[in-house]
Amino acid sequence: MKNTAKNKWSIILGGSSGLGLATAKKLAQHNFNLIIVHRSRRSDLEQITADFEAIRQKGILLKNYNVDGTNPEKRTEVIEDIKTWIATDTIAVLVHSIAKGNLKPMHSEIEKELEHQDFTITLDAMAISLYDWTKDVVKNKLFATDTRIISFTSEGNTKAIPNYAAVSVAKVALEAITRNIALEFAPIGIKANCIQAGIVDTASLQMIPGYERIKDSALSRNPNKRLTTPEDIANAVYLLTMEEAKWITGTVIKVDGGESLQ
Amino acid sequence: MKNTAKNKWSIILGGSSGLGLATAKKLAQHNFNLIIVHRSRRSDLEQITADFEAIRQKGILLKNYNVDGTNPEKRTEVIEDIKTWIATDTIAVLVHSIAKGNLKPMHSEIEKELEHQDFTITLDAMAISLYDWTKDVVKNKLFATDTRIISFTSEGNTKAIPNYAAVSVAKVALEAITRNIALEFAPIGIKANCIQAGIVDTASLQMIPGYERIKDSALSRNPNKRLTTPEDIANAVYLLTMEEAKWITGTVIKVDGGESLQ
Amino acid sequence: MKNTAKNKWSIILGGSSGLGLATAKKLAQHNFNLIIVHRSRRSDLEQITADFEAIRQKGILLKNYNVDGTNPEKRTEVIEDIKTWIATDTIAVLVHSIAKGNLKPMHSEIEKELEHQDFTITLDAMAISLYDWTKDVVKNKLFATDTRIISFTSEGNTKAIPNYAAVSVAKVALEAITRNIALEFAPIGIKANCIQAGIVDTASLQMIPGYERIKDSALSRNPNKRLTTPEDIANAVYLLTMEEAKWITGTVIKVDGGESLQ
Amino acid sequence: MKNTAKNKWSIILGGSSGLGLATAKKLAQHNFNLIIVHRSRRSDLEQITADFEAIRQKGILLKNYNVDGTNPEKRTEVIEDIKTWIATDTIAVLVHSIAKGNLKPMHSEIEKELEHQDFTITLDAMAISLYDWTKDVVKNKLFATDTRIISFTSEGNTKAIPNYAAVSVAKVALEAITRNIALEFAPIGIKANCIQAGIVDTASLQMIPGYERIKDSALSRNPNKRLTTPEDIANAVYLLTMEEAKWITGTVIKVDGGESLQ
Repeated sequence: MKNTAKNKWSIILGGSSGLGLATAKKLAQHNFNLIIVHRSRRSDLEQITADFEAIRQKGILLKNYNVDGTNPEKRTEVIEDIKTWIATDTIAVLVHSIAKGNLKPMHSEIEKELEHQDFTITLDAMAISLYDWTKDVVKNKLFATDTRIISFTSEGNTKAIPNYAAVSVAKVALEAITRNIALEFAPIGIKANCIQAGIVDTASLQMIPGYERIKDSALSRNPNKRLTTPEDIANAVYLLTMEEAKWITGTVIKVDGGESLQ
Repeated sequence: MKNTAKNKWSIILGGSSGLGLATAKKLAQHNFNLIIVHRSRRSDLEQITADFEAIRQKGILLKNYNVDGTNPEKRTEVIEDIKTWIATDTIAVLVHSIAKGNLKPMHSEIEKELEHQDFTITLDAMAISLYDWTKDVVKNKLFATDTRIISFTSEGNTKAIPNYAAVSVAKVALEAITRNIALEFAPIGIKANCIQAGIVDTASLQMIPGYERIKDSALSRNPNKRLTTPEDIANAVYLLTMEEAKWITGTVIKVDGGESLQ
Repeated sequence: MKNTAKNKWSIILGGSSGLGLATAKKLAQHNFNLIIVHRSRRSDLEQITADFEAIRQKGILLKNYNVDGTNPEKRTEVIEDIKTWIATDTIAVLVHSIAKGNLKPMHSEIEKELEHQDFTITLDAMAISLYDWTKDVVKNKLFATDTRIISFTSEGNTKAIPNYAAVSVAKVALEAITRNIALEFAPIGIKANCIQAGIVDTASLQMIPGYERIKDSALSRNPNKRLTTPEDIANAVYLLTMEEAKWITGTVIKVDGGESLQ
Repeated sequence: MKNTAKNKWSIILGGSSGLGLATAKKLAQHNFNLIIVHRSRRSDLEQITADFEAIRQKGILLKNYNVDGTNPEKRTEVIEDIKTWIATDTIAVLVHSIAKGNLKPMHSEIEKELEHQDFTITLDAMAISLYDWTKDVVKNKLFATDTRIISFTSEGNTKAIPNYAAVSVAKVALEAITRNIALEFAPIGIKANCIQAGIVDTASLQMIPGYERIKDSALSRNPNKRLTTPEDIANAVYLLTMEEAKWITGTVIKVDGGESLQ
C-alpha cells in the first residue's frame, strides 16, 4: 500500500466527531481520500461541514454520507452509491468508530434497569456492524488487495463497570469479530485489529453517569499524566495503515499512555 | 449454603443432555432439588424421562419444563409456575447450559455465509439469556441469600476458529455478562462464574464441521491424554456450589485437564 | 484421592503464618496430615507452637521443620528426614506459600533503587523454589499417584505497581512454572494450579510502602465489601485438593470476591 | 523524536543476527545511528563485519561492541566508552534482542533435566538484563527526553511447551519488567513495549528440539500462510520508534500474521 497514492480510499464509520474525526484528519495528511459515514444532528452540521472543508483543503477527496451506518438499507445505499463513482479506485482502510451504547444498571430499585434489547441494540451498533460492513464491501469487490480494518475497544473488555454491561459485551464481541475477520478474510488480504483506547474526553464519555470520577481516576492512574486524546488514537490508526504494519493482524493494541497498567 | 438442606433448589437451563444433565446428576447426589428447563424432541423424551427418573431415585425432587428457555414468554411462564409450588424454598444455584449456535463461514464462495441474524440468534440463546433469567428470578425474589450462577464457555473465547465466529462472540459476551452480574448483583448475595470446558464429545460438538479433527487435536494436545467429560464439568460446578467457593466470583475457570496449555 | 485417608500428607512451604497457616488448619479439618516448612523467628515460636498444637488436636499428624525452605541444602535435609519416617505414606498435596520479595523503586532520587540481585532473590524464593521442591519430591518418589500442587499469585501478574516490580516478575514466573509443571509432570499424576488472591491483610502486606492505601483501595473496589481473608484462600486450596478438582490443572483461579473486576 | 535527525542513536543488544540485525538495517534506513552490542564467535565475524559495513553505507554511524551484554562489567565498559564519544547526542531507542535460553525437560528418565540454575541463567540474559541496561543508561543520562524501549517476547508467554519452561518464564518476566519500566520511568520520557513475534526461522529456533515440527505447525496455523520474518519484526520496531507511537507504552503487541489466532 503506497500511502502517497491519490487513489486509495478510507471509509470511516462515525467520522464526524471524536476518534473518527481525528482519524479522518490524520489520514488526510497522509494522502488518503475519505468516505465518511456519520449520523449527525442538524444543529451540528455547520461545524461538521467546516471540519470536512478543512480536511479537503489538505488536497484529498472527501465524500460524506449523513446516514445511520448501522441501518442495513442505508449501508446498501451508501455502497451502491460508492460504486457509481469509485471507478478503479479501491478502499484500503475501513475504520469503525460507531459508539451507541445503552448505559443502565443491571439491578436497581430506582433507575430503569438494563433489558434484553439494550444488549441487542448496543451489539448491533458497536460490534456486529463491523462484520456487516466488511462483508458488504468484500461482496462488492471494493477492497484493495492489502486492506486494513481498524476498530476501537476499551478497558471495559476485561473490567466490569457499573451500568456499562452492554458496552462491555459489545467491546468483547467486537474483538472476537475482529479475530475471526483477521482469520477468515486473510486469504483476500485483509488485516484487522482493535485499538484499545484509554479514557478520552469525548461527547460519548460525557454521557456516562459518573463521568467526572472516571476522568479523574484515569488521570491519576496514567503514568504519563494526561488523558488520551483523539489524536493519540488517530496516530495509532495511521501506524496500522502503514506498509510496515502489514504483519500485525488479529490483535488488540493498547494506546493509553500506560493508563491500564495500574 | 448448607448442601444437605432439602429445600435448596438448582435451576438448570439445558439440563436434559450433555453438561447440563451431568450437572443435574451430580447436584442431585449432593441433595439439591432440581428445576430442569430443556427443549427436547419427542424422539428423545423416552430416554430423558428415564434419566430424570433415575435422578429422582437419589431422593431429591426434580421438576422439569420442556420449553424453549430462550423464549421470554416461556421464561415468564416457568417462573410463574415455580412460584405456585416453591413456597418458602429458594433457588441457590442457576446453571446455564444452553448451546444453540449458528456455525457458518464469514467468507466462502460455496457455503452459505454468516449473517447478521446468526450473531443475534446465537447471542440471544448462549449469552443474553443468562442475564434475562438472572434478572427475572431476582425480580421474583426466588434466589437464596447466597446464590451461585454458573455458565459454560470454551477456548473460543480467545481463539478464532473458522465457522465459529458467532459462538466465539457469544462466549466472550457470556463472560462479560457474568463479570457484570458478579459486580452488580453482589449486594444481594449472587456469585457468578464461567467454567471454560475442554473439548467434550457431546451432540453439540458432533454438529461442528471438522468435528473429528477437533477431537483428535484436543486429544493430542491434552497432557492428561483424554478428552474432557461431562462429569469433569459437573464436578467443577459442584465445587462452585460449595460453601468454600463463596469468595470465588466474576472469574473464568478452566476445566480441561490442561488441554489449553499448548 | 480419598480425603478421609489418614495416610495422606500435605507439605506446606511457609505454613506458620498467613495463607499457609490458614491452609494448614483447613486441610487438617479434612484429615490431611501435615509437613510444615517454615522460617520463624525465635520471638514468634511460642505462638507458632501453640498454633501447631491446636492443629494436632484435630487428630492429624503434624511435622514441622523450622528451616529456610529456599535453601537447597535445607531442602535436601528435610526431604531426607521425611524419608526416614514416612514409610508407605505419600504426599498428595504441595502448597507453596513463600513470600520473600524485595520492594524498591526502579527509579528514585532518594530511595535505594531495585538491583539485579533483588530480582534474583525474589525469583528464587517466590517462584523457582516451587520447581525445586516439586522436582526433589518427585525424584524421591514421595508423591501420591494423584497429587495437587497449589501456589499463590496476585493481581501483580498483570498490573504494574510502583516498587513492586520484583514481586510482579516472581508472580508471572511462578504462573509460567506452574503451567509447565502441569504439562510436563502430568504423566505422573500431578495437577498444578495458582490461586490469585485478593488483597489479604497479612504481615507481608503490612511491609509494603503505602499499605493503608492499598487496603482502602481494595476495600472500595470489592463488590462484596470486605478484604480477602486467609480462610477464603484456604477454602479454595481445599477445593483444589478434592477428587472433584482432578481435571483442573495449569490454571490461575481468582479468589478475591470480585475485587479485580473493576 | 525526529527520525531524520542525525544525532539520534539506537542501542541494539544482540544486533548481529536475527531480529536484532534486521532491526539495525531498518532503523539505519530511517536515519538512526546505531550502537550494536553483540557476542559473536570468531567464525561469524567476517559475515558480521560485512553486514555492518553494508549498514554504514546507508549513511549512518554504526559503533559495535563485541562483548557479552549480559555481563555487568562489560555493560559498564560499553557505557563508559559511549560517554567518551557521544558528546551531546542522545540514545532515543533501546532494543533488547538477547536470546540465550536453556532448553531442557522438567521431567525425564533419559535427558538431563532443567535445574535451578537454568532458570537463573535464562532470566538473567533474556529478562533482567533489560532492566540493568535501562537503569545504567538512565543513570548516565544518555537517554533522549522521548525514548522508546522495545524487546521481544513469544507465544511462550501464555503457552506451556515441553523443554521450554525456562524461556517461558524469562518471557513473562521480560513483559512484567517492561510494564514496570513503562510505569516507573514514565516521568523521564521512557516508553517501553514488547513485540510478540510469531515463529521466525532463526538460528535460535533451529536449536530447539522438535524445530521442524514447530515450523510446520506455525505454517499450517498462520492464516497468512508464511512464517514471520526478521523484517516483519524490524518493521514493527520501526513503527514503535515513530512520533505517532508515543502514546503506546506498557503493552505487548503481536506481530505474527495471525499465527496465534488459532
